[in-house]
Amino acid sequence: MVTPAEESQLLDGLDRVAERLADGAAVGAPDEDVHTLVERLLYEEVGPVAGKLHTGRSRNDQVATDLRLWTLTAIDQLDSDLAALARTLVARAQEAVDVLLPGYTHGQRAQPVRWAYVLLAHAWPLVRDRQRLADARRRVAELPLGSGALAGSGFAVDRVLLKEALGFRSISANALDATGDRDFVAEVLFALALVGTHLSRLAAELVLYTSAEFGFVRLSDDFSTGSSLLPQKRNPDVFELARAKAGRLLGDVVALVTTLKGIPAGYSKDLQEDKALLFDAFDTLALVLPAVTGAIAGMTADADRMRAALDASLRATDLADLLVQAGVPFRESHGLVGRLVREAERTSVPLDRVPAAVAAAIHPALPAAVGQLGTWEDSVEGRATPGGASRQSVEQQIEALRALS
Amino acid sequence: MVTPAEESQLLDGLDRVAERLADGAAVGAPDEDVHTLVERLLYEEVGPVAGKLHTGRSRNDQVATDLRLWTLTAIDQLDSDLAALARTLVARAQEAVDVLLPGYTHGQRAQPVRWAYVLLAHAWPLVRDRQRLADARRRVAELPLGSGALAGSGFAVDRVLLKEALGFRSISANALDATGDRDFVAEVLFALALVGTHLSRLAAELVLYTSAEFGFVRLSDDFSTGSSLLPQKRNPDVFELARAKAGRLLGDVVALVTTLKGIPAGYSKDLQEDKALLFDAFDTLALVLPAVTGAIAGMTADADRMRAALDASLRATDLADLLVQAGVPFRESHGLVGRLVREAERTSVPLDRVPAAVAAAIHPALPAAVGQLGTWEDSVEGRATPGGASRQSVEQQIEALRALS
Amino acid sequence: MVTPAEESQLLDGLDRVAERLADGAAVGAPDEDVHTLVERLLYEEVGPVAGKLHTGRSRNDQVATDLRLWTLTAIDQLDSDLAALARTLVARAQEAVDVLLPGYTHGQRAQPVRWAYVLLAHAWPLVRDRQRLADARRRVAELPLGSGALAGSGFAVDRVLLKEALGFRSISANALDATGDRDFVAEVLFALALVGTHLSRLAAELVLYTSAEFGFVRLSDDFSTGSSLLPQKRNPDVFELARAKAGRLLGDVVALVTTLKGIPAGYSKDLQEDKALLFDAFDTLALVLPAVTGAIAGMTADADRMRAALDASLRATDLADLLVQAGVPFRESHGLVGRLVREAERTSVPLDRVPAAVAAAIHPALPAAVGQLGTWEDSVEGRATPGGASRQSVEQQIEALRALS
Amino acid sequence: MVTPAEESQLLDGLDRVAERLADGAAVGAPDEDVHTLVERLLYEEVGPVAGKLHTGRSRNDQVATDLRLWTLTAIDQLDSDLAALARTLVARAQEAVDVLLPGYTHGQRAQPVRWAYVLLAHAWPLVRDRQRLADARRRVAELPLGSGALAGSGFAVDRVLLKEALGFRSISANALDATGDRDFVAEVLFALALVGTHLSRLAAELVLYTSAEFGFVRLSDDFSTGSSLLPQKRNPDVFELARAKAGRLLGDVVALVTTLKGIPAGYSKDLQEDKALLFDAFDTLALVLPAVTGAIAGMTADADRMRAALDASLRATDLADLLVQAGVPFRESHGLVGRLVREAERTSVPLDRVPAAVAAAIHPALPAAVGQLGTWEDSVEGRATPGGASRQSVEQQIEALRALS
Repeated sequence: MVTPAEESQLLDGLDRVAERLADGAAVGAPDEDVHTLVERLLYEEVGPVAGKLHTGRSRNDQVATDLRLWTLTAIDQLDSDLAALARTLVARAQEAVDVLLPGYTHGQRAQPVRWAYVLLAHAWPLVRDRQRLADARRRVAELPLGSGALAGSGFAVDRVLLKEALGFRSISANALDATGDRDFVAEVLFALALVGTHLSRLAAELVLYTSAEFGFVRLSDDFSTGSSLLPQKRNPDVFELARAKAGRLLGDVVALVTTLKGIPAGYSKDLQEDKALLFDAFDTLALVLPAVTGAIAGMTADADRMRAALDASLRATDLADLLVQAGVPFRESHGLVGRLVREAERTSVPLDRVPAAVAAAIHPALPAAVGQLGTWEDSVEGRATPGGASRQSVEQQIEALRALS
Repeated sequence: MVTPAEESQLLDGLDRVAERLADGAAVGAPDEDVHTLVERLLYEEVGPVAGKLHTGRSRNDQVATDLRLWTLTAIDQLDSDLAALARTLVARAQEAVDVLLPGYTHGQRAQPVRWAYVLLAHAWPLVRDRQRLADARRRVAELPLGSGALAGSGFAVDRVLLKEALGFRSISANALDATGDRDFVAEVLFALALVGTHLSRLAAELVLYTSAEFGFVRLSDDFSTGSSLLPQKRNPDVFELARAKAGRLLGDVVALVTTLKGIPAGYSKDLQEDKALLFDAFDTLALVLPAVTGAIAGMTADADRMRAALDASLRATDLADLLVQAGVPFRESHGLVGRLVREAERTSVPLDRVPAAVAAAIHPALPAAVGQLGTWEDSVEGRATPGGASRQSVEQQIEALRALS
Repeated sequence: MVTPAEESQLLDGLDRVAERLADGAAVGAPDEDVHTLVERLLYEEVGPVAGKLHTGRSRNDQVATDLRLWTLTAIDQLDSDLAALARTLVARAQEAVDVLLPGYTHGQRAQPVRWAYVLLAHAWPLVRDRQRLADARRRVAELPLGSGALAGSGFAVDRVLLKEALGFRSISANALDATGDRDFVAEVLFALALVGTHLSRLAAELVLYTSAEFGFVRLSDDFSTGSSLLPQKRNPDVFELARAKAGRLLGDVVALVTTLKGIPAGYSKDLQEDKALLFDAFDTLALVLPAVTGAIAGMTADADRMRAALDASLRATDLADLLVQAGVPFRESHGLVGRLVREAERTSVPLDRVPAAVAAAIHPALPAAVGQLGTWEDSVEGRATPGGASRQSVEQQIEALRALS
Repeated sequence: MVTPAEESQLLDGLDRVAERLADGAAVGAPDEDVHTLVERLLYEEVGPVAGKLHTGRSRNDQVATDLRLWTLTAIDQLDSDLAALARTLVARAQEAVDVLLPGYTHGQRAQPVRWAYVLLAHAWPLVRDRQRLADARRRVAELPLGSGALAGSGFAVDRVLLKEALGFRSISANALDATGDRDFVAEVLFALALVGTHLSRLAAELVLYTSAEFGFVRLSDDFSTGSSLLPQKRNPDVFELARAKAGRLLGDVVALVTTLKGIPAGYSKDLQEDKALLFDAFDTLALVLPAVTGAIAGMTADADRMRAALDASLRATDLADLLVQAGVPFRESHGLVGRLVREAERTSVPLDRVPAAVAAAIHPALPAAVGQLGTWEDSVEGRATPGGASRQSVEQQIEALRALS
């Protein structure tokens, strides 16, 4: 239906259209969508043969194809931003293997860990994010083109050829499904919302650590807001915004899934909502991720403040473990150390300075156990299982993360 | 720390505890959680050595491990329910390859398709659901056990051995992350919400088709609610509930992601919310999926009503395609057929019965094109691209889906 | 701190700044926010005294005040758009009091009603929406100005005077709460989401009624999309989009509430998210509401198609009610009519044409009851309780709604 | 249709049914819903006349009425729980008017405030919550009974009498709307979600204040979880759970609104989802609110730790205000104090101990301003606008809140 002569007319015309678009021909254009815009410009260039451009296509399969193409590129860019943040966390961890601070559960000091280890705890979720995006990407890369309006095309469109030419992995299996399916948008939006949740957890923790009370982290001037009045004050704006954006990204998921709820298979105009939501989510992370990466690259850890926060009560677990190793059952050892802790508190003495006689009165094995308590470094190294806070585990994690980003 | 003698004491004791639990020992138990319940019962069986059971564990890594184990099983059950629904849709499609009806876009009749094709359009999303669950499953199958409270265990727990013994794929990489991570719950909840969205779309379409106005589908007595007053009335309760549950499943996602927002890494009590939400979502689908499967297995398609809904205006696309094949540019062909359609409407004549002279006055190629219009079957077969509504495409889809479920 | 001379300098300067802003001085301005922009321009006009403008204010109380002012105006505009839609529904109802059609439950024909009555069923939710907005408005109209950054102002700001001058109802009670509170945004966003839900229900019903199968409603050319190919086809784009936007509006609520979750009292940068969400929601309805209003004003009801959809089975309730009036208990009457319905269906006779002998065999009172069945109009009038579909009730509703909009 | 004799038969029978239900007759009953259960039991008591019980009713108007009745009671209970929490906050504030601590913005120390003032900042949102519930309550109290299935009742039901008897405020205006409307559920769920958000903010702040780093608040044993190992450790479980539940409550809103999206007016089975969500939300708060109230009643404020957190940099605003009172423009004063702050930091001297000569070199008015700086109490009292942290403002707030709860 298109002769070779018409083909080269069309191709030449499209080149000229591309130039005109590059020169701004789309600005303020009156056309209903990009497809009719291109066809109108093409008509101006090559005349009636432009009317053959749309042969074998429907707007329904085209918009689905366009959005999938856009999403593939957007995922790749996001993946790269995520890798950059992970690399930065790893780089900061590398410098901080020797820096010890309390690890927290329930917002309370629990056991000593390495600052590197805390930073890495926020890098691993990004690895999962990238896996999830890679999984989603496979489902994005299904070509709907050639589906027609809902039932296939009346022309012998070579869908496999198109798939190859456009860089898709497979062709869609059912045209009614393919034109009305926006699962790929929902799935990607969800993956982005989970990225947002991870950033909110990282950011909230860093907001905490920049407070005067913790004082573990100091932000660089470039990534905080001071004031003329309080030039030394550094508001953690970047982290507050990163914490906040989790809401917006979740809102985008809800918006799309609710839109999809209860509409029939096949194309409905409702689906047009997909783009604004997808663009909003990617734009949000394109803004937030580099800002967070920059802020983390520029922040300073205060190793002294961190070390100062290690108080003797953090040795309780070590002591109980030592009792267990001396043959005391686990549960019983906890009760015994608990009594020692209470005694230490009552007499305002650090846990490792309770007189041996007092300790022995609680349990004969206690004084020896107290004697075996080493340095904070020893305490951290004492938890040596893979994935723990020990030096070896942290170094293996750094290596593994480097290989992944 | 556990001697061989103690080991066999503990194992025997645990067997007896298992029996007591099977006999209902958990009902009304005063214990804080299942771990302390088991330990208390074990103590009653074997005495103080029970205190060694918890050695090398923390409640933080245990609850994460328990929930992952539960989720693995729940995913497998759900996968099986999804496969059953897909098989039922395919079986019903197999019977309905010859049944033609209008395909709809924007809620309006658009082109003729096969009933089989419409049913299959709702089977393919379930394939994606199962892929998504399989992808998520890999991330669920990471073992947190041996992470201790937050920093690793002080005992030489063999995490690789535990991983093998418990059927996990890998061990978690960072204990602070592993004890505070609930990504796997969020991801699975989202996958379930998308299942719910698919069911809502399928159900909404079937509610429509059971209306007197459409009359395409009649429900069986077992899966509809009549009344003593209107025994012939069949309320599509199953489909209405399936349509509704998409909301609840989305609500569960929102609940979890909002709970995770802004909490620090590591264990916080907030995470305890995960279980109620996950149980609720799986329970919801365990109820809805078999009901929908049953209702679809039992419903009757009214091929006559479907066929009667094919009106001549559905031939417009065919006619335009025929003009294109006769050399008329695509855009122009649409305008020409549009004029014929208007003429047919004005004179209250079906599109394919407009007098040849009238058609020729619009465009000389039109009468021949009208003459080439074949049967409805021809029209469906005319859209022969892979994935379309043609017989071959539908049969290939049936085969492909059979291989997958 | 500001002398009378300075005061007039500042006031004159602000007038000139207002002129410059009207001339576009804000476009591309480098300032951080509108407050620093105004102060910079003022400085250019009046010199150093401009530095006194900010006296007694903090950005924290200013942004909260600005957003409340904006919201008050936006609510009033939305209220006016809602009233316009309600008036249009009422006007269309006024024309359609005599037009009868089936009322539906579960998507199934249930009892005859008036078209006016159906339209009014969609007007009443808008009355609730306007009430909700009026309730929310009272809470929006609390003035935060004078709260300072978090603890009140160090200057003797007259908050009551400001309240009067700016048109607020009251002054906020606690400055820490007032600067960190965004309840008013959440509440307004929710009210808008509920408007969106109402529009989605109205729109979904009209999409249904425009289908060929129902054929109750025909859209005007201005508010539907045809195609060159199918000029008679009218895609209900406006209603599809209205149906879809419920998702986006709900997403905005979720985004804000999730953002607020777990942040401390007082100002945090997180709160900056409020504006984009609020603007998005109001913009969405400012687009959708007039479009829906226009589409409803322009659509045509097909009274013949509606009437044709009234089939005899819709008389079953009437018949059962007549038996009850003849002394048969309610439950029993249902069973008896059910047998008659089945008999009618078995013999393919309309319910009111079953031979008297056959009816009498079911229950002696049945033939008389069948004889008492009047016209469809009688049937509708038979349900005469206030708020029902009877003429009097519909006319009272029209009057009541007119008084409200 | 019901004779006086039948009436007393029915009333007596219903009394006996009530007794049987009180004795557990509902447990394991096979009936479809409570209405058919009651009718079956009534039949067992009084025979066929039981069949008249349902006269003039439809299940559609009954379920809506039942749920509204339930909601009215539930709102009243919740209002009482909210008032109890507010009273507790006020009582704790009353004791703490003299206790000073830093007020925070952006998670950073900003200006000195009273502990009472911070507690009151969390009481005012509860006042708004109760207002919102009161507003919603008016819309809940619209009686749908007498609406029939969708079009009114065929019997002369006296709706105004029923309204009075059941304690409603008005009767619903349109039966199709009334049977399909669940706005009241959505609105109440949203009000509860906002309560949840407020609790999450209060709880998150208290989790922070219980950390070792802040140390402002110590929980009582009854409302925290220790361990046998760390008896002095107090995990703020109640506050962590309160923080978490905001997610669940928001999820319930999303679930309902998504369920309502796009379904037609009138009753659909979809609406059945309303109850589980509403019960879940009220149950959640019925659990959390008293726990939070108890935890706040039992916690101890550490006035010394709070006071110790007031560092000299918090005087910067006071100093700038004093300069302004000395005639320096606001903006300029900030820059000058900023230089003094930097100088203080450079020389490691508190802001109010910088030598007069150094201060005078920055601005001649500075030494006098520094000299005017009084106590922390003076600083707090210096911000004397209504709603601020001053003693008078706090006392007025306490009085106003007492009058409200």
